[in-house]
Amino acid sequence: MSNTSKLKIIPLGGLEAIGMNITAFEYEDSIIVVDCGLAFPEDDMYGIDLVIPDITYLLENADRVKGFVFTHGHEDHIGALPYILKQLNVPIYATKLTMGLIELKLMEHELIKTTRRKVVQPGQTISLGKFRVEFIKTNHSIQDAVALAIYSPVGTVVHTGDFKVDFTPVFGDAIDLQRFAEIGRKGVLALMCDSTNAERPGYTPSERTVGKAFDTIFAEHGNSRLIIATFASNVDRVQQIIDTAYKYGRKVIVEGRSMVNVISTAEELGYISIPERTLITLEEMKNYPDEQLVLITTGSQGESMAALSRMAGGIHKKVQIKPGDTIVFSSHPIPGNEKNVSKVMNELYSKGAEVIFQDAHVSGHPCQEEIKLIYSLVKPLYAIPVHGEYRHRVAQAKIARMLDYDTDHILMISSGDVLEIADDPDHQAKVTGHVPCGGILVDGLGVGDVGNIVLKDRQRLAEDGVIIVVLTLDPEGNLISGPDIVSRGFVYVRDSEELMEEAREVVDDALDSVLDNRGADWTKIKNAIRDELGDFLWKRTKRNPMILPILMEAEV
Amino acid sequence: MSNTSKLKIIPLGGLEAIGMNITAFEYEDSIIVVDCGLAFPEDDMYGIDLVIPDITYLLENADRVKGFVFTHGHEDHIGALPYILKQLNVPIYATKLTMGLIELKLMEHELIKTTRRKVVQPGQTISLGKFRVEFIKTNHSIQDAVALAIYSPVGTVVHTGDFKVDFTPVFGDAIDLQRFAEIGRKGVLALMCDSTNAERPGYTPSERTVGKAFDTIFAEHGNSRLIIATFASNVDRVQQIIDTAYKYGRKVIVEGRSMVNVISTAEELGYISIPERTLITLEEMKNYPDEQLVLITTGSQGESMAALSRMAGGIHKKVQIKPGDTIVFSSHPIPGNEKNVSKVMNELYSKGAEVIFQDAHVSGHPCQEEIKLIYSLVKPLYAIPVHGEYRHRVAQAKIARMLDYDTDHILMISSGDVLEIADDPDHQAKVTGHVPCGGILVDGLGVGDVGNIVLKDRQRLAEDGVIIVVLTLDPEGNLISGPDIVSRGFVYVRDSEELMEEAREVVDDALDSVLDNRGADWTKIKNAIRDELGDFLWKRTKRNPMILPILMEAEV
Repeated sequence: MSNTSKLKIIPLGGLEAIGMNITAFEYEDSIIVVDCGLAFPEDDMYGIDLVIPDITYLLENADRVKGFVFTHGHEDHIGALPYILKQLNVPIYATKLTMGLIELKLMEHELIKTTRRKVVQPGQTISLGKFRVEFIKTNHSIQDAVALAIYSPVGTVVHTGDFKVDFTPVFGDAIDLQRFAEIGRKGVLALMCDSTNAERPGYTPSERTVGKAFDTIFAEHGNSRLIIATFASNVDRVQQIIDTAYKYGRKVIVEGRSMVNVISTAEELGYISIPERTLITLEEMKNYPDEQLVLITTGSQGESMAALSRMAGGIHKKVQIKPGDTIVFSSHPIPGNEKNVSKVMNELYSKGAEVIFQDAHVSGHPCQEEIKLIYSLVKPLYAIPVHGEYRHRVAQAKIARMLDYDTDHILMISSGDVLEIADDPDHQAKVTGHVPCGGILVDGLGVGDVGNIVLKDRQRLAEDGVIIVVLTLDPEGNLISGPDIVSRGFVYVRDSEELMEEAREVVDDALDSVLDNRGADWTKIKNAIRDELGDFLWKRTKRNPMILPILMEAEV
Repeated sequence: MSNTSKLKIIPLGGLEAIGMNITAFEYEDSIIVVDCGLAFPEDDMYGIDLVIPDITYLLENADRVKGFVFTHGHEDHIGALPYILKQLNVPIYATKLTMGLIELKLMEHELIKTTRRKVVQPGQTISLGKFRVEFIKTNHSIQDAVALAIYSPVGTVVHTGDFKVDFTPVFGDAIDLQRFAEIGRKGVLALMCDSTNAERPGYTPSERTVGKAFDTIFAEHGNSRLIIATFASNVDRVQQIIDTAYKYGRKVIVEGRSMVNVISTAEELGYISIPERTLITLEEMKNYPDEQLVLITTGSQGESMAALSRMAGGIHKKVQIKPGDTIVFSSHPIPGNEKNVSKVMNELYSKGAEVIFQDAHVSGHPCQEEIKLIYSLVKPLYAIPVHGEYRHRVAQAKIARMLDYDTDHILMISSGDVLEIADDPDHQAKVTGHVPCGGILVDGLGVGDVGNIVLKDRQRLAEDGVIIVVLTLDPEGNLISGPDIVSRGFVYVRDSEELMEEAREVVDDALDSVLDNRGADWTKIKNAIRDELGDFLWKRTKRNPMILPILMEAEV
C-alpha cells in the first residue's frame, strides 16, 4: 500500500500560461479538484473561442472524484466548468459570489438543475473523501476570493488561489493572515502560491488607492461626461465608481452585457450597494446634462465587440463619443491586448475625447514582498510556484531561494505531472508520472473538433489563401470537363489575369504528362497538379497557397 | 499666383501609427520628400510581409519631385525606398551611415547603379529646387540621425526626425542644440516633432546608462556565457557590449543576418570600433570557455525566425542554450510584440538559463521635457506633432498647449492632408485638400496585388475554413457527377462524419429544389447551395465557413 498512501498533486493546466487553472489532489480513493478554468486562445489559434482543459485523467477516475472546489469567480478559474460538468457530474463548492457567477454559466448551459452545489463561507471547512478543505479569506480583484488549506493524511497543502494583501479592502475583511500563520505553525507540506506578479518588486497597492484616483478625476473633470471602463468582475472597482459618482451628484449608467450581469448578481447577493436613484438606464441618459453622468462600461481591454470599443468606433447604438467626454481606462492591458487598447484610445482621441489611462488601476496579484510575507507565515516544506507563465514561476522560485529554500524543495512542475509526496518523516516529493493534459479547443458549438490539423490548415489558408483545381474525368480517365481554377485569398484575380492564365497552362501541362497513359491514377494526377502549380506560384510570387486538386468522375 | 506661392506640407503616411514615415514639401515647381519608410503589417493583415506608402500624388507630379531626403536609417524611414524608386527614380540625400544602410537595400533590389545618391554631413545644407535643406545633428537609437531645417521662400520648417537629447552620446557629438536655437531665433514657421514618447514625463536617459548596466551584468555573471539580444541597427549599443566584453576579457560573436549586415556596414564606415582579436566566429566559439564569450544576437522582439528565438526553441544549428547561460534583452518589447517576447523568455527559462530584461535598454525618442526643450529653442509659429499614433500626437499637442500655444496654432493633420501655409504676414495655415494616401500591401513578390477583398477572404478562411461543393452538369443541366464536398480548416472530417453526411444531404436537397426545372441557371444553383448549407452549418456549429460552390459543364 506504499503507493496509495502518498499524496498526489496533479496540475492539469495553468502552469504554462495564465489561464486554464485546474489541479487535482489525490489520496487513495479520493480525488478533489481545485478550480476549472478556461484559457483564451493564442494568436495563432484562428477562429477558436476558448480553450478548456483535457480531463482524461479525471474521467478515467471518475468514481473517485469527490468534487470541484473553487478559489474565486474569474474565467480562468471557473470558465471551463460547464463543459467539464457535461462529462463529469460531481458536486461543486464555492463561496457565495463565486457560486453566483458559476450559476450564471450553469443556467446558460442548462446545467443548473443537475449540478449539486454548496455555498461555503470563508473560515469554513468541508470534508471530501479523505480530504478536508478549509476556505481562507483573501483579497483579489474580485470579491469572495479564498485560499485553500487542503488537509490530507500525509499533511497540509496551502493553495493561495489568486490573491493580494489588501489591509484596507473596499468590501469585507482583509486577507486572514492570522489563519495562514496558525496553519503554518502547525506545519505545511507545500505552498502553491500565485506567481503572476512575482517579477515585480514591492507591494501591490490597496484597491482603495484607486478610489482616491477616482476622486481626483471626478474633481478635475466636473464639466465632462465621464465614461469609465473596467473589468466587469471587479465589483469593488464598480462600487468605488458608484460611491464617487454619488459624492459628486452624478447618475450612473452600467453598459455592456457582462457588466450588467455581474453587477446585478453582485447586487442580488449583497456584494455591492447602490444608493437609491443613482442608477439610471441608457434611455434616461438624455434627461441629464453631461456633468451629471457616469457610464461604467466593458471594453477596457479593447475587445472588439465590447461596449467601449463600439462607442469608440462610432457603432454603439446609444452612446456617441463627443468632444468634452472624458474616458477613463481603469485597467492595464493584459499582455497581448496592448494594440487593441491603443486602437480604441486613438479612436476616442480622434473624436475629441480626453483619455485617462494612468493611476486608475491596481493589480489583484501579489508582488514580491507579499509573496515573501505568505511564505513567512506558512513556512511550507515545499514551494510549488503556480499560476503564471514559466518566467513568473521562475521569479517566485527565486524569491523562495532568497528565503533559503533549497533547490530540491522548490518544485517546478508542469501540467500533467504527477507529483507524489510520501507519508514518511522526510515527506520525500517527486514527479512519478505524467497524465494526459493540454487544451481542448472550443469553436462555436464544437468542443474538440478543431485540432492541430484543422488549425494548421487555417493558418495556411490565412497566410496565402487557397487555389482549387477541379476537373471531371469519364470512367476511362478522359478529361471531359475542366481543369477549372478557382482561388480565394491568393491574389485579386481581376488584376492578375496574366498570372492566372499562366497557372492554367501549368496545370494543363501537368495533366498532359500524367493523363498520357490510360487509367491514370488519381493520386498521381493530384500530386502532379500540386507540385507543378506550387513550384510555379512560388517562383512567380514567393507565396505558398494551399493547392486543392479535386477530381470527379462523371457517370456517363 | 496666390496658390503657387504657398508652402504645402503633405504627409503621405506616419500620422496614424508608428511606421511608414514620408512627407512631401511643395513650393511652386519644387517638391521634396522627407523619408520613405515602411510599416509592419497589422495583426489582421494575414500573410502580408510589409506595407509601403501610396505615392500616387508624387507620381502624378513626378517632374517636380527633386529628391528624397532622409533623417536616419530605420526601416520606418528608409524601408519603402526600393519599392518607390522603381516607380520614381529621383536623387536621394542622406548622412553616411544612413546611406550605407540604404545601399544595402538598393543592392538587394539591384537599384544601386540607377540611383543617384549624395552623402551629406550634419551641418551641411543642400539646394533642391526652391528649397534649401540643412541637416542638423541629433541623437537617436541609430547613429547619424539628423533633424532637417527646410528653408522655403515662405519660411522655415524644422522637422526633428526621430531624436532624443543625449548630452553624453557613445559615439560622436551630442544633438546640436545651439543650431536649433539659432534657427529658432531667426524665426520658424512650423516644428514637426517626434511624438513617440510624448506620453512619458521627464527625460530619456543617455545611451551611456546602458553601458553602466552592462558593466554590472558582466561583473555579476562572470561565470556565465552571455547572450545579449538587441536591435541590429543600434550600433552604439553593440559598441558598448563590445567595449564591456573587451574590458572583461571576453570574445564576441555576432549572430543573426541583419546584425551581421549592419555591424559590417558600420565598421566599414567607421561607426564602430572593434578591438583586434575580439571578434570570433560561431565556429571558433568551441575553443573558448563559457565565461570568455559574449554572443550579440538579433531576436530581442521575439521575432519567430530571429537567431535568439531559434536558440530558445532549440532549432538553432550552432548555439544550444544550457543551464548557466545568461540572456540579456537589451530592448523593450514594441507594442504588439509582448507575447512573442514572453514566449522566448519562457523557453529560455525552461532550458535553465537566466534571463535579464530590466535596465538594459533606453529609448531613442524624446520624453516630455525634451520635447519642451526643442519647442523652447525652436519657438515655431505652428506646432505640427508627427511620428506616432494619434494618442502620442495628442500628448504632444497637450505639451504645446502647456507652452501657451493656441489651439489654432497646433495643427493635428492626417496623412493625405494638404496643409498650406500662406506667404503673408500672418502665415495663415489651413488644410486645403486631400491627396490619395494609405498602405500598399507587399506579399512575397507581389506589391499591391493583395487588397481588401483578398484580405477579407483570408480573414474568413482563417476564422472557419472553407467548404467546397463541386458538381458536374451535362449541357442539358443534368447532374452527371457530384455533388462532392471537400473541406479544409473547418472540422477534422474523420471525427465529424455524421455532420459531413448531413451536410451532403442538405446540398442534395438544395440541388433537388433548383434542378427540378430544366435549364437551371448556375447562379441560382450556387446561391441555393451557399444559403442552405450555410444555414445548416451555422445552426449546427455556430460557425460560418466560406462556402464555395463550383459548377462544371462536361462536354459529353
